[in-house]
Amino acid sequence: MDLHPHCEPLAYLLGTWTGAGVGDYPTIDRFAYTEEVTFGHVGKPFLAYNQRTRHADTGQPLHAEAGYLRALGENQVELVIVQPSGIVELHHGEVRGQTLALELDAVHVTPTAKSVTDVQREFRVASVDDRLVLSYDMSMAAVGQPMTHHLHAELTQQP
Amino acid sequence: MDLHPHCEPLAYLLGTWTGAGVGDYPTIDRFAYTEEVTFGHVGKPFLAYNQRTRHADTGQPLHAEAGYLRALGENQVELVIVQPSGIVELHHGEVRGQTLALELDAVHVTPTAKSVTDVQREFRVASVDDRLVLSYDMSMAAVGQPMTHHLHAELTQQP
Repeated sequence: MDLHPHCEPLAYLLGTWTGAGVGDYPTIDRFAYTEEVTFGHVGKPFLAYNQRTRHADTGQPLHAEAGYLRALGENQVELVIVQPSGIVELHHGEVRGQTLALELDAVHVTPTAKSVTDVQREFRVASVDDRLVLSYDMSMAAVGQPMTHHLHAELTQQP
Repeated sequence: MDLHPHCEPLAYLLGTWTGAGVGDYPTIDRFAYTEEVTFGHVGKPFLAYNQRTRHADTGQPLHAEAGYLRALGENQVELVIVQPSGIVELHHGEVRGQTLALELDAVHVTPTAKSVTDVQREFRVASVDDRLVLSYDMSMAAVGQPMTHHLHAELTQQP
């Protein structure tokens, strides 16, 4: 299936990425996790995004999220994400080389979810020792805290 | 992995379902599709939902969506869904036997998505000729149209 031309600036994200990350937030203990991220396509102007993390020591499932990275053309994107914690996010942004910098349009939560009022995400791919590494950072304003860094992970592309 | 007790009233949804559906809307031609739906779990109080449809004749990918069905206990649920068309939905509802009736809390779209202002979804499972059949209906108010039926499909559970 040919990649949609609008997705070409995002082609570097395609595939399966695995690695490790660390999470932190003023209201919780610092924690380490392993992670698998996939970006797939079906020939349409979006990539399908899926993410799962596990506890670094026990292997227990921790977080998951799913979404779609909409390629609008001319390096413009929109990212929609849904989380089992009852959170949905709508971002827009721009592809700058191998960096995807996003700005939040809106975050919404279900009636019983924890409050989240702002989210900041950035993804970047770099070549490290002949391997491609996808790293990301996620910050959020949640449960009464101001915008604070929450997650950083580094993942290598699987063959 | 044991099913989370909150998910027990939803256990009938678990697995992979395949079948066919028909879509209609005042602004488009009626169309037929094949579909695969999965409901999975990781021992936490939610089911992961994934859906993909293909054109009934050409097999070309049509629609996809992903989400999480949050089990709150006492037959109460919340459903969050994300679509590559830039639409996110937040519903709540109740499990009544093998019917899952949902009410919309909110629908939001990205800046470049088509307008959608209301969505109604219902899922139900019935035993038909010794096979379990998952059927659903989806109606929406979109692109200036009032709430109108959009999709109906019937899927059988895969072994």
